[in-house]
Amino acid sequence: MVQDLYQPLDSGVVPRFAGVPTFMRLPVARPQDVDVALIGVPYDGGTTNRPGARHGPREIRNQSSMVRRVHHVTGVSPFDLLRAADCGDVPVNPVELEESLDRITAFYSEVKAGGAIPLTAGGDHLISLPILRGIASDAPLGMIHFDAHSDTYDSFFGTSRYNHGTPFRRAIEEGLLDPKRVIQIGLRGSISDAANYDYARAEGVRLVFIEELAARGIEDVMAEAREIVSSQPTYVSFDIDVIDPSFAPGTGTPEIGGVTTREAQQMVRALAGVNVAGSDLVEVSPPFDLGNLTALTGATIMFELLCVIADGFHRRLSAAQPALLAGSLS
Amino acid sequence: MVQDLYQPLDSGVVPRFAGVPTFMRLPVARPQDVDVALIGVPYDGGTTNRPGARHGPREIRNQSSMVRRVHHVTGVSPFDLLRAADCGDVPVNPVELEESLDRITAFYSEVKAGGAIPLTAGGDHLISLPILRGIASDAPLGMIHFDAHSDTYDSFFGTSRYNHGTPFRRAIEEGLLDPKRVIQIGLRGSISDAANYDYARAEGVRLVFIEELAARGIEDVMAEAREIVSSQPTYVSFDIDVIDPSFAPGTGTPEIGGVTTREAQQMVRALAGVNVAGSDLVEVSPPFDLGNLTALTGATIMFELLCVIADGFHRRLSAAQPALLAGSLS
Amino acid sequence: MVQDLYQPLDSGVVPRFAGVPTFMRLPVARPQDVDVALIGVPYDGGTTNRPGARHGPREIRNQSSMVRRVHHVTGVSPFDLLRAADCGDVPVNPVELEESLDRITAFYSEVKAGGAIPLTAGGDHLISLPILRGIASDAPLGMIHFDAHSDTYDSFFGTSRYNHGTPFRRAIEEGLLDPKRVIQIGLRGSISDAANYDYARAEGVRLVFIEELAARGIEDVMAEAREIVSSQPTYVSFDIDVIDPSFAPGTGTPEIGGVTTREAQQMVRALAGVNVAGSDLVEVSPPFDLGNLTALTGATIMFELLCVIADGFHRRLSAAQPALLAGSLS
Amino acid sequence: MVQDLYQPLDSGVVPRFAGVPTFMRLPVARPQDVDVALIGVPYDGGTTNRPGARHGPREIRNQSSMVRRVHHVTGVSPFDLLRAADCGDVPVNPVELEESLDRITAFYSEVKAGGAIPLTAGGDHLISLPILRGIASDAPLGMIHFDAHSDTYDSFFGTSRYNHGTPFRRAIEEGLLDPKRVIQIGLRGSISDAANYDYARAEGVRLVFIEELAARGIEDVMAEAREIVSSQPTYVSFDIDVIDPSFAPGTGTPEIGGVTTREAQQMVRALAGVNVAGSDLVEVSPPFDLGNLTALTGATIMFELLCVIADGFHRRLSAAQPALLAGSLS
Amino acid sequence: MVQDLYQPLDSGVVPRFAGVPTFMRLPVARPQDVDVALIGVPYDGGTTNRPGARHGPREIRNQSSMVRRVHHVTGVSPFDLLRAADCGDVPVNPVELEESLDRITAFYSEVKAGGAIPLTAGGDHLISLPILRGIASDAPLGMIHFDAHSDTYDSFFGTSRYNHGTPFRRAIEEGLLDPKRVIQIGLRGSISDAANYDYARAEGVRLVFIEELAARGIEDVMAEAREIVSSQPTYVSFDIDVIDPSFAPGTGTPEIGGVTTREAQQMVRALAGVNVAGSDLVEVSPPFDLGNLTALTGATIMFELLCVIADGFHRRLSAAQPALLAGSLS
Amino acid sequence: MVQDLYQPLDSGVVPRFAGVPTFMRLPVARPQDVDVALIGVPYDGGTTNRPGARHGPREIRNQSSMVRRVHHVTGVSPFDLLRAADCGDVPVNPVELEESLDRITAFYSEVKAGGAIPLTAGGDHLISLPILRGIASDAPLGMIHFDAHSDTYDSFFGTSRYNHGTPFRRAIEEGLLDPKRVIQIGLRGSISDAANYDYARAEGVRLVFIEELAARGIEDVMAEAREIVSSQPTYVSFDIDVIDPSFAPGTGTPEIGGVTTREAQQMVRALAGVNVAGSDLVEVSPPFDLGNLTALTGATIMFELLCVIADGFHRRLSAAQPALLAGSLS
Repeated sequence: MVQDLYQPLDSGVVPRFAGVPTFMRLPVARPQDVDVALIGVPYDGGTTNRPGARHGPREIRNQSSMVRRVHHVTGVSPFDLLRAADCGDVPVNPVELEESLDRITAFYSEVKAGGAIPLTAGGDHLISLPILRGIASDAPLGMIHFDAHSDTYDSFFGTSRYNHGTPFRRAIEEGLLDPKRVIQIGLRGSISDAANYDYARAEGVRLVFIEELAARGIEDVMAEAREIVSSQPTYVSFDIDVIDPSFAPGTGTPEIGGVTTREAQQMVRALAGVNVAGSDLVEVSPPFDLGNLTALTGATIMFELLCVIADGFHRRLSAAQPALLAGSLS
Repeated sequence: MVQDLYQPLDSGVVPRFAGVPTFMRLPVARPQDVDVALIGVPYDGGTTNRPGARHGPREIRNQSSMVRRVHHVTGVSPFDLLRAADCGDVPVNPVELEESLDRITAFYSEVKAGGAIPLTAGGDHLISLPILRGIASDAPLGMIHFDAHSDTYDSFFGTSRYNHGTPFRRAIEEGLLDPKRVIQIGLRGSISDAANYDYARAEGVRLVFIEELAARGIEDVMAEAREIVSSQPTYVSFDIDVIDPSFAPGTGTPEIGGVTTREAQQMVRALAGVNVAGSDLVEVSPPFDLGNLTALTGATIMFELLCVIADGFHRRLSAAQPALLAGSLS
Repeated sequence: MVQDLYQPLDSGVVPRFAGVPTFMRLPVARPQDVDVALIGVPYDGGTTNRPGARHGPREIRNQSSMVRRVHHVTGVSPFDLLRAADCGDVPVNPVELEESLDRITAFYSEVKAGGAIPLTAGGDHLISLPILRGIASDAPLGMIHFDAHSDTYDSFFGTSRYNHGTPFRRAIEEGLLDPKRVIQIGLRGSISDAANYDYARAEGVRLVFIEELAARGIEDVMAEAREIVSSQPTYVSFDIDVIDPSFAPGTGTPEIGGVTTREAQQMVRALAGVNVAGSDLVEVSPPFDLGNLTALTGATIMFELLCVIADGFHRRLSAAQPALLAGSLS
Repeated sequence: MVQDLYQPLDSGVVPRFAGVPTFMRLPVARPQDVDVALIGVPYDGGTTNRPGARHGPREIRNQSSMVRRVHHVTGVSPFDLLRAADCGDVPVNPVELEESLDRITAFYSEVKAGGAIPLTAGGDHLISLPILRGIASDAPLGMIHFDAHSDTYDSFFGTSRYNHGTPFRRAIEEGLLDPKRVIQIGLRGSISDAANYDYARAEGVRLVFIEELAARGIEDVMAEAREIVSSQPTYVSFDIDVIDPSFAPGTGTPEIGGVTTREAQQMVRALAGVNVAGSDLVEVSPPFDLGNLTALTGATIMFELLCVIADGFHRRLSAAQPALLAGSLS
Repeated sequence: MVQDLYQPLDSGVVPRFAGVPTFMRLPVARPQDVDVALIGVPYDGGTTNRPGARHGPREIRNQSSMVRRVHHVTGVSPFDLLRAADCGDVPVNPVELEESLDRITAFYSEVKAGGAIPLTAGGDHLISLPILRGIASDAPLGMIHFDAHSDTYDSFFGTSRYNHGTPFRRAIEEGLLDPKRVIQIGLRGSISDAANYDYARAEGVRLVFIEELAARGIEDVMAEAREIVSSQPTYVSFDIDVIDPSFAPGTGTPEIGGVTTREAQQMVRALAGVNVAGSDLVEVSPPFDLGNLTALTGATIMFELLCVIADGFHRRLSAAQPALLAGSLS
Repeated sequence: MVQDLYQPLDSGVVPRFAGVPTFMRLPVARPQDVDVALIGVPYDGGTTNRPGARHGPREIRNQSSMVRRVHHVTGVSPFDLLRAADCGDVPVNPVELEESLDRITAFYSEVKAGGAIPLTAGGDHLISLPILRGIASDAPLGMIHFDAHSDTYDSFFGTSRYNHGTPFRRAIEEGLLDPKRVIQIGLRGSISDAANYDYARAEGVRLVFIEELAARGIEDVMAEAREIVSSQPTYVSFDIDVIDPSFAPGTGTPEIGGVTTREAQQMVRALAGVNVAGSDLVEVSPPFDLGNLTALTGATIMFELLCVIADGFHRRLSAAQPALLAGSLS
């Protein structure tokens, strides 16, 4: 079994700046051949203001060459625990919104059918909707959602119901998310009106503004988050704009006063034990980035997410197949 | 009549860096109250690769503060010859393509109804199609088209017939352009296949590649251009990517080996005498720009276009109302 | 009365990237027709090192398109509480220091005469002096001053008494500020000598260095600040360099180790209840900015300041005219 | 045979910004399975001033997504004429100069053994030496060398004989180049002393300074170049700094007054008929680049070189196997 | 005598990126001890729009580390022909215009008294006025002036007679320049009105617009320039904005359509034989620069100017002291 | 004695942007004539990924013009307490690793022989090794090491034992450091494997990861650091990447989640009382910097280090020569 594990290119042989940049320097493979599928969704057609997130997957891949093998705090070495590979980009159509959503849903339906957990690099936040359509068709998921914005507006510009400010209202309406098992963390910034927050609250979504997060501390809020989603399958959506724009300037809708990267890492690590059914990292917009800092941050957060997923995967596998697994690591 | 002419903010009173940036520091006015309407169309939903041209009108306005009153070669002072003002932006919907096209067409139909000549800052090149729908509804126009690309593809991504690579095939199909009176200048760059060039040639469009332009010289090619469009109403479409990316890096589809800004100015000045029914300057994409150089270039080319339009406007007016005009300038 | 309130351009109709950028997408109006006048003072002739703040008002306007209507913490919706509009830029002369100071003073004298509270975007910090000359001619004001520097030097380069390192010594000398009601918060950085701090202390100014601020916490220091200025009219001067240069790099005299934007927002919100007679946000220098981050921060802080002013304005109005106001909002 | 030709990713299916960036969106293959091997050599340990060319291959790959299939002037479609693929990067050691040179030589010896023509993206110009050691071990090659610098110094810093200022003196000394069949085009810039030019001239190398190039014109100089190298196997080395830094700022040793990209394209196209045994494009240094313009230029010049090679390859093949080839294309 | 010649730091011992950056890596010396004094005048208080030229001397010094010893076309090695050194910066006062002008004049009066030819790095163009006051107090000089602008306005903002748009009207009025011996080359760009050109023409200044320069060619225009200034002492003023902003973006008042760097070098080399009494290179504004390209261009043009001066100096010295000089070089 | 103290250029006479940039605007002097030698080591040949630190010393010098005379918290005025000057750069050879190491060692041996304490600006972290060889030849030093990385790997790329990931393993092996008196603070980031940490721990080095630092607080950790190094001579090595990349993006191996500059200053100030035998500030890489922020941070941290050294120097001198010193300051 160990021989099946995909391994990153060895930086002791090939320097980090060399070679074709795949996610974390992993081999390219098909979703059905992996346990965690690293996927790019280069679509930003849902962006209402500053575009560019379509270029996110490529630059995150580029910067992910800086990612190494072992987590320095938890000691988790994900590539030794499961099969993770670069499963390529969904071939979206940049000038057709509905067609692109359908293509994304079809791609993730196959990922789900193959049994892999998807870990996605966006793209704008609208992509979370077709991903959920692909993987939550059976039963609604819970969600831990890191973001400066609730993304539960009803529509923009009068009639536009599908854009990066509406995915989670649609997902709740379509029964893809169980709003009682949804928590949004890091909300902030002036608003046009309170309609989105009112909707979310009415549905039972738990809203944690940055002020509450700062007052209570990350450990406390994350404990509540774990309780809300319980041990049931949960989606983790990480909008890079939850992080302050000084750390992550390359995004379409920056809001000052966000979390630091240290806090972001602490939040992701606190997901340990959550039953992650899928995850995304969205809204990295390279044309607005400075020194690729946001893409580097995105790549590093994806590694943190991968370690959480790998740890949970390994725990469940250990519980199910203790003998086999023990053997494979010896 | 002279008192009706809109005047730029006087830089002898208000420094160029001060004040709210309108096009060329002109007043804001309604299209029906001007002879030339400076309009922004901040739409880039037709972009197949690098987005950002939606931010073009604002940054062109910003850099147009550097534009002054009198053309140093021709001596034309457009603001003394006609009424030109900033007529604002068309309120497009960034996430709905067809709706945006309809809004643009409606806006330009009104401009045409009011009698003004539109001079537009885009936006990606798809916007030329709804503009032509608005102003060429009566009879097909001729066109002098400066561009690295022919923009006469049939479709992209299989089914997408409306994007920034197809506007002029659509315009020919819809009878908005008379292909026999269309010339495209500055074409270059590797191509996926020759289908677009074949279509254009078959329809009678005159294609001038950069190599022919360099070999024959600008004066010779522009003389041919004037002959092709004749004295009938003609649209002038200026894609900033006809200029080399070292001079205009802020664009979505740069092609090396383009014209210099000096050559571009020479080409626009050679439009003198053309019966310009409308004009646009498109594909300035500020997120990819360097030091706002492309926006400055776009603003300066718009001033060159305005001087050509003002000169033609004045000549026609002089022919029609010699007595009145002479009086108004004394 | 309600019908007189100026409203920002509706982002549900016109996208945020479209249109001519005024402050917060508000209409342009005359100072005498508003309750709060948003004014630009594009002057940086007092800058001793890195210039560029003259470009501040324009870029702050540009980035202020990201500002929305309602404060997410306090719920204050300033545009529903008072009349705020973009009152344009003071027409300074970039090559004449004294003339520019006089023009600024004249402009603000009129603002004061009209009864509006000015909220200014600079410009370098010298502009606070002529503003104070315009609005504090009757009686000295108190001041809450956020800054990395005390700006109470006597002179630079031997003889230059008017520059961005001296405005508040001049203001104290001229009786525009009551030093006993002045507090400076966020001071830090190596100094040429301690003469400026010695002067300020001798006059009774309260100096809070960043180390004290970090040790005591923002709430505690701000409580002291409110006590020092009491309920009397107070000026609020916010030098963007109080914020750390990682969050606000676009400034002339950056000092590492500053406050975060989250802390800055907390400080401004803690002004609730202060009797604000005027306010400025200065030293945003776009040529040194990165990704317009500093201008975005400046625009957002101006919105925070506007909310504080609107809230206070509304409270005072409510106390004075409870019946009228209640009616106007129903 | 046609079915063996590697094809770029179809931009009608996968947008240009999507997918893992290989050279020209080609498949990855082994050198022995191709006719032209696109290879990266990410080594800049020979750089005497500004480093960064080690990052060249990756960014050239990234920008080469803009390259399409057919040359717009010659009509050459290289991917239909021969097998070209991305053969990866040579695994150099960034901190060991001699070891890296040896690894490069070993890699290219294998390429030569397999029969492929190498088309390389550097790296600094020192890499041309180990490449020549790999492919010119049998007999000295001629060389057409585009560069601002002669790169024929004897040593730097007293003792350093292997750096990016010396490769072609070493290559001549080692019998890898026939100096009588070497021409250097585009030389310019102030010099420490004339020793390098004196050496080159003494060996019979033809030096064409930018002034001669401008005076005589490109066609005339290139005709001389073709004559000098004759029909014998010839290496083509293209240092990006032959191009003016306004077009190609991302390089270690920029010299103003260089050729334009249009001139560069003209020079490369004039290589038609030259018997190209290998080629490189070196000194693209992304950390010093602006807007990736230099990498885009490098990628486009590589496509121009590939078209020249493909055309020559096809001509030779046609002459040798007319029947077979005719059949394969029908 | 040879032992007195100052020599640049040897790049064969100390790499170009090492060491404290003086002009061309020369020693620091007093003006009275040199033949050519390289001087910085970091003053931009005369700038009417975009400031930053005060940072020019430092960044030009920095980039001048790329300058080497010998001119590749003329073979002139200036450091072997005369004593050239870095004579530091004039200690201007950034917030006092008249005081700064006086300090500059005083500095250059001393340079003149010591017998050195000054070669200056600005600073905005106003600095040419106090320099001329310092060195042309005896008799008016001729001038060859490369610039996009005539800089002969009477005043700006109503009353400001001393700014970077007026220095040469002042210099003519003060008898520092003989207008009959002044030629301005490269003029272009829209103008507020034609008053400045009218004044210059009326005084006898020869104006060469970019269009005439392009039509006639550089050699022809420069021959006329040499004739106009005759063999009498002549000042050479080089405003970097004569060069196109794609080559020199870092300047305050860019105008598209300018000369290339290759053309600029050709123009400066054509000064051979002119009796240069002093020279400046102004308006390099690092805050607006891209990749330090403008500063590099400025440093290289200064080297071209130095070579012209050194060649002329050597010719005059040879004529006067043939025996001594011959001995000193053997 | 006081008259021997070197003084920075007076910013009351020469503006900060003027003049040749030495470290902190100090005079240039020989190491044997100073108490603290500010030295540049522009070498980055040990860099395994992104190069550019060779440009660090020059840009740190440039930004150090912002440094003033007196520390605002401690009141220490280092230039009044000891002789500090810019002692230039070690003349390394960028293409020869071992030769460069030898040159550095030789330079620092002389510094040590002259009695000065070296305060170095790097360069990559490999330079600490030859510095220690130069100054720790007698007896091993203790070390307080701020860094994101332990830099105690054995080798890279198989055989390379000298690079910026190995200096402190070499230093321990060579007896230059006493591992029991070494503490590393701020470690973080994913790792290839744990071999380096295992080695360090086995030797007795104290490793403080960022998580422990955040949990315990800076004062507590620094108290432990002072205890570990005791009162014996100690080296202080400050890798700029210990600071978060949002504050210090210009470095070769950024790791998100680092310390803030405020925390960094607090850590350095907590060195008060440590017996500093030498110090360095390394890994500032200007080509990757944004707005020179990292160089400014580096220069400011060097000033903090200088104040600590000056304070300790003064205390020891006071203890040894109370009478003399008292006299010299009166």
